[in-house]
Amino acid sequence: MSEYLSRIKSPADVKRLGMVELERLAEEIRERLIIGVAKTGGHIGPNLGVVELTIAMHYVFDTPRDSFVFDVSHQSYVHKLLTGREDRFETIRQPEGLNGFMLRTESEHDAFGAGHAGTALSAALGMAVARDMSGGSEHVVALAGDAAFTNGISFEALNNMAAQTKRLIIVLNDNEWSIDKNVGAIAEYFHKIATNPTYVNIHDRAAGLVEKFGGKAALHIARKAEEAAKGIVGRGMIFEEFGLSYYGPLDGHNLPLLIETFKFLKQQNKPVVLHALTQKGRGFQPALEKQKKFHGLGPYDPETGETKAAAQKTYSEIFAETLTRLADMDDKVVAITAAMPNGTALDLFRPHHPKRYFDVGIAEEHAVLFAAGMATKGYRPFCAIYSTFLQRAFDQIVHDVALQNLPVVFCMDRGGLSGDDGPTHHGLFDISYLRGVPNIIHMDPKDEDELQDMMFTALYHQGPSAIRYPRGTGPGVALKAHPVVLEIGKAEVLQDGSDIAIFALGAMVAEAERLAKLLEAEGQSVAVVNARFAKPVDGECIGRYAKRCGLVVTMEDHVLAGGFGSAVLESLNAQAIEVPVVRVGWPDEFIEHGKPEALHAKYGLTAEAALERVRPLLKRPVGV
Amino acid sequence: MSEYLSRIKSPADVKRLGMVELERLAEEIRERLIIGVAKTGGHIGPNLGVVELTIAMHYVFDTPRDSFVFDVSHQSYVHKLLTGREDRFETIRQPEGLNGFMLRTESEHDAFGAGHAGTALSAALGMAVARDMSGGSEHVVALAGDAAFTNGISFEALNNMAAQTKRLIIVLNDNEWSIDKNVGAIAEYFHKIATNPTYVNIHDRAAGLVEKFGGKAALHIARKAEEAAKGIVGRGMIFEEFGLSYYGPLDGHNLPLLIETFKFLKQQNKPVVLHALTQKGRGFQPALEKQKKFHGLGPYDPETGETKAAAQKTYSEIFAETLTRLADMDDKVVAITAAMPNGTALDLFRPHHPKRYFDVGIAEEHAVLFAAGMATKGYRPFCAIYSTFLQRAFDQIVHDVALQNLPVVFCMDRGGLSGDDGPTHHGLFDISYLRGVPNIIHMDPKDEDELQDMMFTALYHQGPSAIRYPRGTGPGVALKAHPVVLEIGKAEVLQDGSDIAIFALGAMVAEAERLAKLLEAEGQSVAVVNARFAKPVDGECIGRYAKRCGLVVTMEDHVLAGGFGSAVLESLNAQAIEVPVVRVGWPDEFIEHGKPEALHAKYGLTAEAALERVRPLLKRPVGV
Repeated sequence: MSEYLSRIKSPADVKRLGMVELERLAEEIRERLIIGVAKTGGHIGPNLGVVELTIAMHYVFDTPRDSFVFDVSHQSYVHKLLTGREDRFETIRQPEGLNGFMLRTESEHDAFGAGHAGTALSAALGMAVARDMSGGSEHVVALAGDAAFTNGISFEALNNMAAQTKRLIIVLNDNEWSIDKNVGAIAEYFHKIATNPTYVNIHDRAAGLVEKFGGKAALHIARKAEEAAKGIVGRGMIFEEFGLSYYGPLDGHNLPLLIETFKFLKQQNKPVVLHALTQKGRGFQPALEKQKKFHGLGPYDPETGETKAAAQKTYSEIFAETLTRLADMDDKVVAITAAMPNGTALDLFRPHHPKRYFDVGIAEEHAVLFAAGMATKGYRPFCAIYSTFLQRAFDQIVHDVALQNLPVVFCMDRGGLSGDDGPTHHGLFDISYLRGVPNIIHMDPKDEDELQDMMFTALYHQGPSAIRYPRGTGPGVALKAHPVVLEIGKAEVLQDGSDIAIFALGAMVAEAERLAKLLEAEGQSVAVVNARFAKPVDGECIGRYAKRCGLVVTMEDHVLAGGFGSAVLESLNAQAIEVPVVRVGWPDEFIEHGKPEALHAKYGLTAEAALERVRPLLKRPVGV
Repeated sequence: MSEYLSRIKSPADVKRLGMVELERLAEEIRERLIIGVAKTGGHIGPNLGVVELTIAMHYVFDTPRDSFVFDVSHQSYVHKLLTGREDRFETIRQPEGLNGFMLRTESEHDAFGAGHAGTALSAALGMAVARDMSGGSEHVVALAGDAAFTNGISFEALNNMAAQTKRLIIVLNDNEWSIDKNVGAIAEYFHKIATNPTYVNIHDRAAGLVEKFGGKAALHIARKAEEAAKGIVGRGMIFEEFGLSYYGPLDGHNLPLLIETFKFLKQQNKPVVLHALTQKGRGFQPALEKQKKFHGLGPYDPETGETKAAAQKTYSEIFAETLTRLADMDDKVVAITAAMPNGTALDLFRPHHPKRYFDVGIAEEHAVLFAAGMATKGYRPFCAIYSTFLQRAFDQIVHDVALQNLPVVFCMDRGGLSGDDGPTHHGLFDISYLRGVPNIIHMDPKDEDELQDMMFTALYHQGPSAIRYPRGTGPGVALKAHPVVLEIGKAEVLQDGSDIAIFALGAMVAEAERLAKLLEAEGQSVAVVNARFAKPVDGECIGRYAKRCGLVVTMEDHVLAGGFGSAVLESLNAQAIEVPVVRVGWPDEFIEHGKPEALHAKYGLTAEAALERVRPLLKRPVGV
């Protein structure tokens, strides 16, 4: 049982605790995180790293009056525990439960939602400027990991900051990791600061104080820490060049030091950055040992950290293995990830072709431009970027890749509903945002083997292509020894029929086959077509079946507005064919987090729901 | 007549000239630019600034073997003059003529096309890495203005550069301007370098040498310049922190110095940045006096720089004046531009509300996040960003604005065909990329007065909205004294009819009225509807007229794939109404530059072309 945590009903309760109690609270929070997330799955590593930072922030500042903006906000669990959501913490990432990220509709303490990296500084600057204009006195505090500084938006914000406000606090939570180890010059730069002798001195001094006086001498430590805080103007030249005052680096797990430092910083009349060094996964040995695995994961054993071995390969794994094979046979194949080697499974590719593997940081725009540059020199870049994150590079896809008709392949992992992570991670817009772009083709495999074929097809296609595949596992079909090149824009007729034609895309092909069974049970003759291409759609096939059947159903794991069904409508329109079309897909609203099956049922993306919509349109009565 | 320029058929011819001749070539190029662009219009200021830089680059490097990547590439006119396009220079930005930007399909010397800022470093890094992997020895040179460093992609590229290649040359062309004066910390940082005493010394020394020895002592100057080049390791700390070697600043108009410096840099075995100080508009007094005007403009008098006074206010001007009025009445209204105060006309807003005007640099992602942050504190940000540039911020629109349902207004200037600038500047995708996004509304005014109403509507709408308006002038209607709030998703019936219903959007409403006249002349009864909203469309109105007329025409200045016509198809489909629909809009290809009227005619976006498509579908024979 938690002695202190259970008494925290709001941040005001944090402020009532003494230093020793705060340290105990930190311990209780760690325990709660480790045990709680073991059941639900989630971002355990990042949250274990910010326990003291979050406590100190809530001790010194005053949300919701003050605004906390967390970059990505997967590290907001501690914040949720301290802001009246402790009793619901076990529901995190569960259906109808707490979201795994900050959410403005969930709590007034969540000033800004997130889920994609690099947004905190810009949003916080907007708030600070708004505060200044309104004559407010509240604080705005942005908490951003070092990984956020591999993303260009952070620099766009820094470029504007000093000129636009005199009061903004940035906490640089430096753990040297994004999901994988951070890459590039900025990471190296932070590392150089963290390991320089000045910092080591401060760190040792603080550690020494705690050891010497123990918990009882909290006041004394705090006083010493205050002195230290005032003295920790380090060598953060880059920030200074941007006109910010830099403080640090300091030990991000030293509560008294953090508290005194925040008290000091809140008095400053200039934008400041506090460089805090933290340890991702702190207090949980398995997470310290396996940083990548414990960034974010499913349920695990809270003692050992063990997770259930996957019974079947995921789409991501099939992708990475196939790309390895393509790279074996063609030395122009290269792989690019934007800081997601684990999520995209490219860490399986890397050992085979280390020189043809590029992790560019959380920099999707750069990733696509870098790929375009390589493509002009004859390379065949495969950019593995989640559907939702590829939104970041939309302009580069249009302007730099498609307009120049360069053969870059976009491998859009997490295409379709993402499930537990919720609306910031669902990949439900990629057909609508890519379908308007000339030159690009958009493929959606119905199973693992077809993913292989589509990657092979993309390799030989003389122009840009996008392949979208779902999170997790597929039907688990066997892979052909030799993938084949598919005909561009050609659908696959899975079964012939004369009453109803179902055109389904990707993961929905299985559901289409279920729908066909249900209709057949009612005496209907059903054609099932695996569309394969969302762009270009197979107009000839669509036209032929529409004319023969007089009733068309489309099924997609994507929003209906501008999606695959809409492409079918356009094709029928272009052929002047007028038949009823039932379009199955996601409605025009943001879909919450939850179990995919439950959400499919709730929003009518099932064979059963489709059947109800189709039945009134059947030209032959049921059962005849 | 040009003595040297007319003899340059390829860069090889540049290499044959001596120093004195190169100086004369520079003069001839300036003259040619000033006179040529006077007729065609174009980016005169930026090109006058890079005459010597471009000559020196072609003198020292060897395109197409070496690759030049120009950021934005509006400064590529000199490059075009030196790479076999001198005889066609008068056709620049003219129908069927040279494009105003680099274009891979136009010349093998154009290694990478551009038009949007901040892409050069990333693309060049991709090329350099590809070169390294292939074991090539060619050079990759990126030329980027200081404004490119207000864009985050440049930093994403810098973060990756030192770790990924040992040979890449970046030329920082620093003229302290983007289109307007540059903003933010980076601009200030460059300015600090440029005005420090060390630079002034080198500059004075070089200038002194030229004065002393004149053209005859070119060899001597070159030798001295070489010494200078080796000595100009300045204080570019930011670049050094990113692991690049920094050289500069140096006088970007000193040809011998530039040539020797490039010769020196091409020997370096590390990525380098050369900081060249240039003068935008150099050699043309009107351009020096009016930097903003002469960044890019229409035809002008080559003697005086005078341009024809506009007879009528542009949509941009109406937008800015209306926003000023909205800001007068509501102190929560703020204006945000991404380095386009002139293009968006927000420079008309600025003097009235200087504290509510924000130019954030070429940083569209930051602009939208900054707006979102302000919106959480009760402000009503109007982001004026060209349709094509807003592609940059697609993820922020989806993830930060729409998902959080924040009342940010996107004012998409240059919506529709842009004309002379070509495919990098046409705004033909914004309906398809925004229509799939929940919560957002998308409005398109038929004239200036409706733009006013739509801005008023957006101000009172409790959620995000986008307004798209064309480049240049509209029909020139009078503005109501008091704008009105439009009903969301409600179309305006302009004339009733019973045979054909035309639904037109924005600028195409005028064409719809012309089409109606043509049809009426053939005895048809035609309804004309101003759709006003591309999202949500007015389903009731569409359904009513589709049923009554049995024949629908849609007209939009946008690609057909996923566009407004597609939304009408979806609406009819949702209502189970099956009638012929003729969709008029742009086909699924990138549209070249040219005069809008000519391109409309070529691609069938005219009343006449629509008539031909509608005629066979008329239910009543013509003339009855």
